[in-house]
This record gives sequence, C-alpha cells and structure tokens, in this order.
Amino acid sequence: MRVGVLTGGGDCPGLNAVIRAVVRKGVRTHGFEFVGYRDGWKGPLEGLTMELGIQECRGILPRGGTILGSSRTNPFKIDGGVEKIKENLAADGVDALVAIGGEDTLGVATKLADLGVHVVGVPKTIDNDLSGTDFTFGFDTAVNIATEAIDRLHTTAESHHRVLVVEVMGRHAGWIALHAGIAGGASAVLIPEQPFDIEALCQQVEDRFKTRYAPIIVVSEGAVPAEGGDMTVASGEKDAFGHVRLGGIGDRIANEIEQRTGKEARAVVLGHIQRGGTPTAFDRWLATRFGLQAADAVADGDWGTMMALRGTKIIRVPLSEGTAELKVVSPEEYAEAQVFFG
Amino acid sequence: MRVGVLTGGGDCPGLNAVIRAVVRKGVRTHGFEFVGYRDGWKGPLEGLTMELGIQECRGILPRGGTILGSSRTNPFKIDGGVEKIKENLAADGVDALVAIGGEDTLGVATKLADLGVHVVGVPKTIDNDLSGTDFTFGFDTAVNIATEAIDRLHTTAESHHRVLVVEVMGRHAGWIALHAGIAGGASAVLIPEQPFDIEALCQQVEDRFKTRYAPIIVVSEGAVPAEGGDMTVASGEKDAFGHVRLGGIGDRIANEIEQRTGKEARAVVLGHIQRGGTPTAFDRWLATRFGLQAADAVADGDWGTMMALRGTKIIRVPLSEGTAELKVVSPEEYAEAQVFFG
Amino acid sequence: MRVGVLTGGGDCPGLNAVIRAVVRKGVRTHGFEFVGYRDGWKGPLEGLTMELGIQECRGILPRGGTILGSSRTNPFKIDGGVEKIKENLAADGVDALVAIGGEDTLGVATKLADLGVHVVGVPKTIDNDLSGTDFTFGFDTAVNIATEAIDRLHTTAESHHRVLVVEVMGRHAGWIALHAGIAGGASAVLIPEQPFDIEALCQQVEDRFKTRYAPIIVVSEGAVPAEGGDMTVASGEKDAFGHVRLGGIGDRIANEIEQRTGKEARAVVLGHIQRGGTPTAFDRWLATRFGLQAADAVADGDWGTMMALRGTKIIRVPLSEGTAELKVVSPEEYAEAQVFFG
Amino acid sequence: MRVGVLTGGGDCPGLNAVIRAVVRKGVRTHGFEFVGYRDGWKGPLEGLTMELGIQECRGILPRGGTILGSSRTNPFKIDGGVEKIKENLAADGVDALVAIGGEDTLGVATKLADLGVHVVGVPKTIDNDLSGTDFTFGFDTAVNIATEAIDRLHTTAESHHRVLVVEVMGRHAGWIALHAGIAGGASAVLIPEQPFDIEALCQQVEDRFKTRYAPIIVVSEGAVPAEGGDMTVASGEKDAFGHVRLGGIGDRIANEIEQRTGKEARAVVLGHIQRGGTPTAFDRWLATRFGLQAADAVADGDWGTMMALRGTKIIRVPLSEGTAELKVVSPEEYAEAQVFFG
Repeated sequence: MRVGVLTGGGDCPGLNAVIRAVVRKGVRTHGFEFVGYRDGWKGPLEGLTMELGIQECRGILPRGGTILGSSRTNPFKIDGGVEKIKENLAADGVDALVAIGGEDTLGVATKLADLGVHVVGVPKTIDNDLSGTDFTFGFDTAVNIATEAIDRLHTTAESHHRVLVVEVMGRHAGWIALHAGIAGGASAVLIPEQPFDIEALCQQVEDRFKTRYAPIIVVSEGAVPAEGGDMTVASGEKDAFGHVRLGGIGDRIANEIEQRTGKEARAVVLGHIQRGGTPTAFDRWLATRFGLQAADAVADGDWGTMMALRGTKIIRVPLSEGTAELKVVSPEEYAEAQVFFG
Repeated sequence: MRVGVLTGGGDCPGLNAVIRAVVRKGVRTHGFEFVGYRDGWKGPLEGLTMELGIQECRGILPRGGTILGSSRTNPFKIDGGVEKIKENLAADGVDALVAIGGEDTLGVATKLADLGVHVVGVPKTIDNDLSGTDFTFGFDTAVNIATEAIDRLHTTAESHHRVLVVEVMGRHAGWIALHAGIAGGASAVLIPEQPFDIEALCQQVEDRFKTRYAPIIVVSEGAVPAEGGDMTVASGEKDAFGHVRLGGIGDRIANEIEQRTGKEARAVVLGHIQRGGTPTAFDRWLATRFGLQAADAVADGDWGTMMALRGTKIIRVPLSEGTAELKVVSPEEYAEAQVFFG
Repeated sequence: MRVGVLTGGGDCPGLNAVIRAVVRKGVRTHGFEFVGYRDGWKGPLEGLTMELGIQECRGILPRGGTILGSSRTNPFKIDGGVEKIKENLAADGVDALVAIGGEDTLGVATKLADLGVHVVGVPKTIDNDLSGTDFTFGFDTAVNIATEAIDRLHTTAESHHRVLVVEVMGRHAGWIALHAGIAGGASAVLIPEQPFDIEALCQQVEDRFKTRYAPIIVVSEGAVPAEGGDMTVASGEKDAFGHVRLGGIGDRIANEIEQRTGKEARAVVLGHIQRGGTPTAFDRWLATRFGLQAADAVADGDWGTMMALRGTKIIRVPLSEGTAELKVVSPEEYAEAQVFFG
Repeated sequence: MRVGVLTGGGDCPGLNAVIRAVVRKGVRTHGFEFVGYRDGWKGPLEGLTMELGIQECRGILPRGGTILGSSRTNPFKIDGGVEKIKENLAADGVDALVAIGGEDTLGVATKLADLGVHVVGVPKTIDNDLSGTDFTFGFDTAVNIATEAIDRLHTTAESHHRVLVVEVMGRHAGWIALHAGIAGGASAVLIPEQPFDIEALCQQVEDRFKTRYAPIIVVSEGAVPAEGGDMTVASGEKDAFGHVRLGGIGDRIANEIEQRTGKEARAVVLGHIQRGGTPTAFDRWLATRFGLQAADAVADGDWGTMMALRGTKIIRVPLSEGTAELKVVSPEEYAEAQVFFG
C-alpha cells in the first residue's frame, strides 16, 4: 500500500515525531510505501510531494516544526479542489492518507472521508481544544515554556513591586493559561471561557501587594472583559522610541491596571516561542504513539477515524467526534484552582 | 479541624506543590489549621512538628524536595510505634493526616486507616509504579531529565562511533526507561519486566552502526539479563586513576557490549539528578490538583482514600487499591514501540 | 566596620549572587557587619533597611531579582537628597556602601564618592554597555534566553516559510542582539549603533528564501532605520480580537517586510523574560567574584572604585571610568560576523 | 586555495560552530574551497574525506558533536604517518589545514607546522586547560550542565539530610569543578591541583549540617587525597541487585564520608552528559569567532598559529604557546572562593 502523509495548520512541537512513527511502523510492520505531501492540503491539491521513508525521518524526533511544511489551504474553498486531490492521489498511486492537523485540517479530512477518500487523522493543536482526546501533543511543550517564563518573571515582579501580565496562546480555550497559571503560581488566570471583571482583578492586585509577593496575571490571547467592564481603550501611547505600544489583551490589561491601581504594570506576550522548538518528553511520547496507532489504523482500513488519548491508552474515535465542537475549560475546571487566585 | 501533613520515602519533584495546595485549599475553603510533621512517619512518631500555613508555603511551588523533610521510618516496625503515633496526634490536637508518599508510606497509611486513624493519601513515586492512578507526579520530570540527557548523548555517540548506555531509575518497573527511550529515540530499552538477551542486544548494536547513527541503549537500574544470558562479570578493572570502575547494570552492559562487539561503549548513570530540582509544568499541575482534592477528601471525612488521576480527572480510590500491587509495563506496552528498537 | 548594600535600576540575574558574596566575604574574612538598604538609593534616602547577614543570604545564589528590592530613585534629583543620605548612613552607623547598579546607580555613587561618602560600586547591566569591564553579569543569561528563543523559532519559520523578527533588549547598545544573533544563527542583526537599510534587509529576506531556510532577524529594541529609509508607519491595524497590534521596532519591521516582500512576517518581543529568573553559571561566577572583590575593596578603603572583569581577572577601576561613556558595538565588531548575515 | 578541516580528540559542544564559521568565512570572503577530513588525524592519514561547503554546514550551529567525526589517532606514532599525510594532502590538492582539537591534536599540528605543513589550530577542550587562551569553547556548556545538576541536587540533599558528592570532568585541571562549585553553591570543591584532606572534608560536612542545609561536594574526576590521607579503599560492596558499586573518586569520597561521619552520602557522576548536546550561547559565540579568525589566518598564511581569546578579542598565538604546558587552577584562584567552602 502507498500512503500519503501531510501536516496542516499552525506548527506544533511533535509533528515530526508523528511523521517518523507513522513511517517507521508503516514500513517495518505493514510494508507500506510513503509519499510526503508538502504544505498541508496544498500538497495533494497541487501535487507537491517529497520522498518519505525511514531515512528521511532519521534525526527528526527532537526537532520542532514539520519536515513536510504546512499551510492553511482548504480544498473545499477552491473550485474543483476535491476532484483535484482525488486525481493527484490516483496519479501518485496513493491509497490512503494520514492527515495530521487541527480543527480545520481534520475538518477537511472528515469531509473527504465522507466522500470516500481513505483517510485517518491525527489531532494536533497547541491549544488542546480538540474534543475526543484527553490531550494533544504540543500543548505540554507550550505549557512548559509559559511556566518557565512565569518562573522567570516572579523575581522581576517582586524586585520592582510591579504587576506582570503574561499573554499566552489560546484563542477560544484557556487551557494553556489555566495549566501554566497553576504551574507557575499565578495570582490570576483569565481565559476566553470566563469574561473577566477588570475591577475585581484590580482588587486582587492590590490585595496581592499586601503580601511581599507581586502579582503575575496569566491571560489567554482570546480573553475578553465582561460586558460593561469599562476598559479604557489603550491607544496611541508612544514609548521611548516614538513607537506606538499597544498590542493585544495583555497590553490592554497591563495598561488598565496601571491606570486604576497606580502600580507599575508590564505585559509580556510569549507568542511564537510557545509553538516552536523541541517537544517535551510527554509530547514526543504522545506524538509517537499517535503515529504508531495511525499506521495501524491504515493497515486496518479504519477510515474516518482519529487517534485519541484516553487515560494512558491510544484509541481511535470517529473524526467527526474530534471536530464536532471545541473542548473548552468548564466552569468546574476553572473553579478548581480558584484558591490560588485572589 | 486540625490537619497534619507528612511526606515519606524518596524525594520527588512536586512534593512541595502538594503541600502548598493542601494547605491553601484547607485554610481558604475549609478553615482547617495545619501542623507539619517532619521526616515522614518519624514526625508523628517522635512528635517532630513545624508550623505550616499559607505563609510557610509561599514560593515553594517550583522547588524540588520537600520542606517537611523525609525518611523511610516505618512505625509498624517499631515497638509501640502505632500507639506512639496515636498519642502524638492526640497531643497535637490533630484530627486528620494527609500522608504523601509511595508504596511504603501509603502502606503504613492503609494500615493506620484500618486502625481508625483519620488519614488520606497522596501517591508519590518517581517510578510511576503505583496502581490506581494513570500517572504520579515526579515521573514526568524524571522522564524529561532522562530525555534531555539522551538528546545530549546522541551527538557524542555519533562523533565517536561509540555505544552509550544510559542507566535510569526504575527498580521494579521500566516506565522511566520506556518513556525516555521512546522520547529520546533510543535504539534499545531494557526494563525489569522483560529480561534481556545480551546476544540479541549486541546484534542490534552492530546493525545500528550500519546506519550513520550510533546506538543509545536505555536501561532501568533494575533490568536483568535473561537466564542463561552469559554476561561476563565485570570486576576488578581499573581506570586511569587506579579506581575500580564497575557499577551497576549500565556499566556491566557497556562492558559486555565492548567485549562482544569490539565497539567502544560507555555507561552514564543518571542517578539522583532525575529526582531533584524543579518539577515540570505537568508535575506541578498534577501535584497541585492532588493536594486540592486531598483537602476536600479530609473535609468530606473520606478516610482511607488515595488521590488518583484518571484521564484528566482527579478521583479518589481506596488506599488499598494503590498499594495492593505494583503497576508494571505490560508486554503489550513494551511491544508497542518495538519498531524503533532493533 | 558596618557596611550598607543596595541594588538599583532594572533587575538583572546575578544581583543576589553579588549580595551573598559581599556578605559572606565581608563577615568571614573581614569581620564586617551589614545593613541591607531597600529599593536602591531610596533605601539610604528614606532609611529603609533590612537585616543582612549570612543567614539572609542562604539559598539566594540561584534566584533572579534582588532580595533588597530596587528602584530608579536618584537622590541628586531630590532637594536635600544627598544630606539625607549622609544623615541616614550616620544614624545607621554605616561606614561604607556597596552600590550595585548600572549607569544611573553608579553615576550617583561616583558623585557621592566625590563628596566623601565611602562607596564602592559593582557594575550591573543586562545590556553589557558599561565601559571598564569586559562583561557585566546578567548579560550572559539574557543572551542565552534570546538564543534559546531563536532556536525555537527556526523550525516555525521553516515550517511556515515565514519571516520571524525577534526583538531583544538593548536601548543604546546592540550587544544582546549581536551575541544572540551569532549564537542563534540569525540571518540579520540590527543594532542601535548601525541604522539599518530596510530595502537591503528585504533583499536579504528574499535571498534567504532561495535556500530552504527561512530568515530570522534579530533586532535591538533601540535599532533605528537609516535616514531616508522609507518605513511605512504601522498604525491602526487590528487583530482578530479588534485590538490594535503595533508595538515597537520589531513589529514595525515585520510589518514592513510583509508589505514589501509579500512574505508572511511575525514579530516576537522577548521583553522581561530576558532579565528575570535564575542566572547562568557564567553570571553566577562573575557576580560572585565581583562581590568577593567588593568586600576586599571596602576592607582596603579603596573608595570610588568599581569592580571589573579583564580577561579572567577581577580588577578595580575608578567608578568614573565605568560611567564616563557607554560601551557600544564598534563597526569592526559588527562587521566581524557579517558573512552570516545576508 | 583548497583548505582541509579536521576535528580531533574528545567531542565538545561548539565543534560544529567552528567548522561552519571557517567554511562560511573562507568561501564568502576568501574564495576558498574546503575538504572535510573525517575522524581527526585519521582523515588525512588514510585519505578519508567528505564534501564540506556552505550547504553541508547549514543547521549545524546548535548541534553538539562534530559532523567530521573524531578520533585520537596520532600520525607521529605510526610508521611513515607524516609522509602519508603529506602525500594525501597533495593528492587532495589541499594547501592548508585547519586543525580543531586539544593538547594532542594541536601537539601534532605544532610538529607538522615545524615540518612545513600549512596548518592553523583552533583550541578545543572541555576542561579549559589549554594555555594561551582565556577560555575554550565547550567549557561554558559543561559548567552550566554541572551547575544545573547541582541546583537539582540541593533539594534532594536537604530533604534527606544527605551528603551529595558530584563528580565532574577534569583529569588534570579543576576548572569545571571550581566554576560549577561556585555557581552551584557547593560546600566544598576538590580539584586535582590541590590534594584534599579527607578529615578536614568530613569536618566541613559535619559543620554544614549545623545549618539547615545539606552539603554538596563537587569533585574533579582527577582529584586525589593528600598523602597520608587515610582513605578506606571502597571495594567489593554490592548494591541491591548484587552489582559491585565502586566507581571513581566521587564514589570513594561518598563512601568515606558515610563511614567517618555516619551521614548518608551518595555520589553522582555526571560523565558524558557534560560534553554532549547543544552548546551554550557563549560557546557558540566563541567557537564561531575562533572559526572566523582561523579562516583569516589561513588567508594571511599565518601558519603555526592558534586562535585565542583574550578579554573580548580573538587573537592568534603560536601553536606552541597553547600546547607547551597545561593551564591549571592557581592556589590564588582556588583560594578566592574559599569563604563559601567550609
């Protein structure tokens, strides 16, 4: 059997570990041949291929990013896209596809599977917001990087009696903020699922200064103030070099705290360093096991399934289960650690 | 309510995170007072106490070790030990105990619970070999440290065309070796559950050198050769300084490979660096959640229970479940990643 | 003798290592007593003191920040400030001061020394821009953090065929950018000392994409475009959440590259994580040796001197030498590594 | 001009950074062509070559080890070795050699230069014991790894009231032990240059336990007891698995302390993890600058020179200067930090 592999969406530590495991298991146990499709769905759409065998996968386990490249191309948004993919797969002699990606990439995979394409999916999201699996790889790496950053910021906050606001990834789900906030000993964690009350937050800041510790506030990039939360729009301020320094929600909150409490506040936006570089051991282990299972799923002809972690087992669930709805932080999960916050 | 807390057995990254969470949740939500017992069961046995409140727990989240100290004291092996503990608890006005520890410490807790002492347990083992919970804290830290060491050793092995044998912790269970071996891209993983065949191992070593990569072999300290495996006893050799260099199973395997294959082989014994220092984000998060749940278990009077991770939930199981038998690597789990080995 | 110690200006990994070394050497070898002044020059100005002995310094060596706190208070800008300091020193029975700080803090120390106050200085700047010393502590830590971030970003840049612009500290001197750029394998390094040509930079970006590697551009926060460099003012753009995303020079360059080359470009601003947290071994070693030497300088009554590294030796130079002019990157030093850039 | 490059002796983080810089500068600035010789002096001796150009050097900057491989082959110990090298260089059309290595490799280079071979040297030693240069690359990485290990061990030592002995590299010079001991806050540092008094050491251990901190002793692998120091020969003891656990000086000291003081003591031997893996920013910067300078030295025909760091400058010194005698820790340097020890 000839199997194509592609990676789509934002990069994520562990992608290469999945690729390596699929290929190793596929070649050694099942006798598959592999074709690498470049740059997500763009690969099968435009016939962009690369050699992919055990040799190409040597040494990639600890490397971030993806040797296959990635893109956000969606063949369903392109006229004749799906047909083009089917033609290219046929032309390449490819019988099955392993699609590694997040909501969008797996959404495409789900529809293609419905149209009869032989595809299995491997879930990938830094944000950990895919349903059907306990965790996705990349998330543990992101949380560790954010936690190390928070560790570093504590001493700065204390030495300068200053508030530090750390903006982490998480557009729709606050998992990174919640886990890194708990692990880093944050004073407050603000997530998209729970609109925040800026006044209550400022009160927490003032209370925190009554201990000898300074507050660290961890905020998801997608966090929003509660309605009526009267946040001053930070705009137009310039820094020492004449640049306008505004930024996202982290900057706005820092600015707001400074204005309301009179305490110095600074924002740090972790950005892309959360998603690059070598994966943690957990993510390499999880990604590897997803890859091994995906090769078996192909061998079993178990099309339309997605690999998932449940407890310590890797299982297969319908692709639709993973992409039906976002996994967000529940009120109970958010409440669990509230004794540390405020 | 007045609650005692103790930590027993070998130290483990995350112990302080548990202590902090129990105290924070206990004080803030349940209005408990706390007493710290020093040095494991020796504390309540000899009446060694320390102040333990929110203040004492500030700043300890990222710190390895345990602020309470530890020991391997077993009150059931001491004449009148149990009575002494009961007397001291009564004298200190302590109504309940939170015991944080491994097989031995929780074994004592189980028996004390049977004798009517109000005790809840928090499982702790670097080796991850306690039943009833998906993972224990400290394990992820140990695996990451071992994986980073393996990452470092790859380039040395390749530059010198040399075999490197990495001995990791794991007396009775091979979890650290298995996870770090998968995550580090090892060529072979030897665990206590599966006696190894030294001849087959040497064959793998020679095959590996046919690629341009040099072999890294990860071995649990408790790994043993299969019966009849004719290992030369390494003994009496001296190094450049006249010291006898023998060591444990790692050294013996390196020595054996060198003699059988003619390839240079060296052992690295990671030892205590696997169990010290700051916990990973995962371990801080898990330890914190165990602590929060333990405080609730005390509030609920749910004596004789142990905190456990199942999937992403923290649940309570009977203490006896955690201590009844060791959780070891099953043949299926060992086989899962065999495509990378050999 | 009774000796006061203070730390001023921005925090910097290694401050606690200096404090610990001054105290240990002062007490053990010279029999000094110590007084900690809180929050930089604000301490002696307002009489804010704390206990400072060997006990207070235990465990602080690996900790970032400063146990003494810091501020940017300048007594020469306060009416009667200098007199107030002299009075407080006298009232506290303090015969000599060890002032640890950067240009501003040591500038005050220089003037106070001229006015007869017994003071020795220890140079501190993340930016490494103090004259008279080969390196300052904190710099090596900042460079390592920036280098690790660049390491992480390479794989993201490559996977997404994207330009990444990394903004690092350095208002007036480009040392962090230069060292991290060399160590991280950047495609370009932009520093305050050398106004950059945005057109040439965009050309480099396009050339880089002809290899299979994507460009990483490291830029000091104080870098400026060459005159006539026609940079579009990035303003008013909004992100997915409706926040204005503008930021400093890093953001502006990323925006400009995207507009001119059509390649996706993103900025990462490392900010405060460069200055917090545990110091590297080099910084702990350097800071410790500065502290030891400072205690000896006090014992020798060598007032008005500053500790400095020359090669591998710690020497003393006049405070004025360290504060007379900024140490910037020379054109030769900038040119040295140009073969990697462009 | 056609230039050969080789790396000899033990591997060391930064070797690849040197290779990359020599090649980049040589090709871009001087128009050289390069030949890679494999496995140290074995390469030109046996005519083992590999392609070496800008392409081969992409991505190697952060990688440990050496893409050229290494060996300890000495052509002066092989009949006709030198002639063979001359013949092979001529056959390969190689006009000049860049030899990267330690005492042995550069010793060969020195003699070859005397015999008219066009060679320049780049000093390499983890141990930092080459004369003529302030620091060698690889040393900073080793010191950081040792320091991180010590950081981790502190909490274990304290939690268990246990002595931990950390054996680090350093056969003839104690630089790694001294720097890591200072940076890690060790209680004692034992180096080859200063035979240690086991009785005084045990006294220090007992004094240390009077504080609440437990002792960490850092010892160079080449440290030796003072004459008459009556150390029990540790021999024949077996561990829980029946293996003889003896080892080097670290194990012997731990054993001795345990017997003399009754305190539990354990040794950790860091071994090869000190020399593998990614270099620190300092080592990448230093190695890169050595490489740049070496390319210029070749262009200048400055044969028989070795690159060296003096302060912040890279200079050239005669090869003989670097290899004439070992750079060891002077009594003054050892004494400098004694206030922390004991």
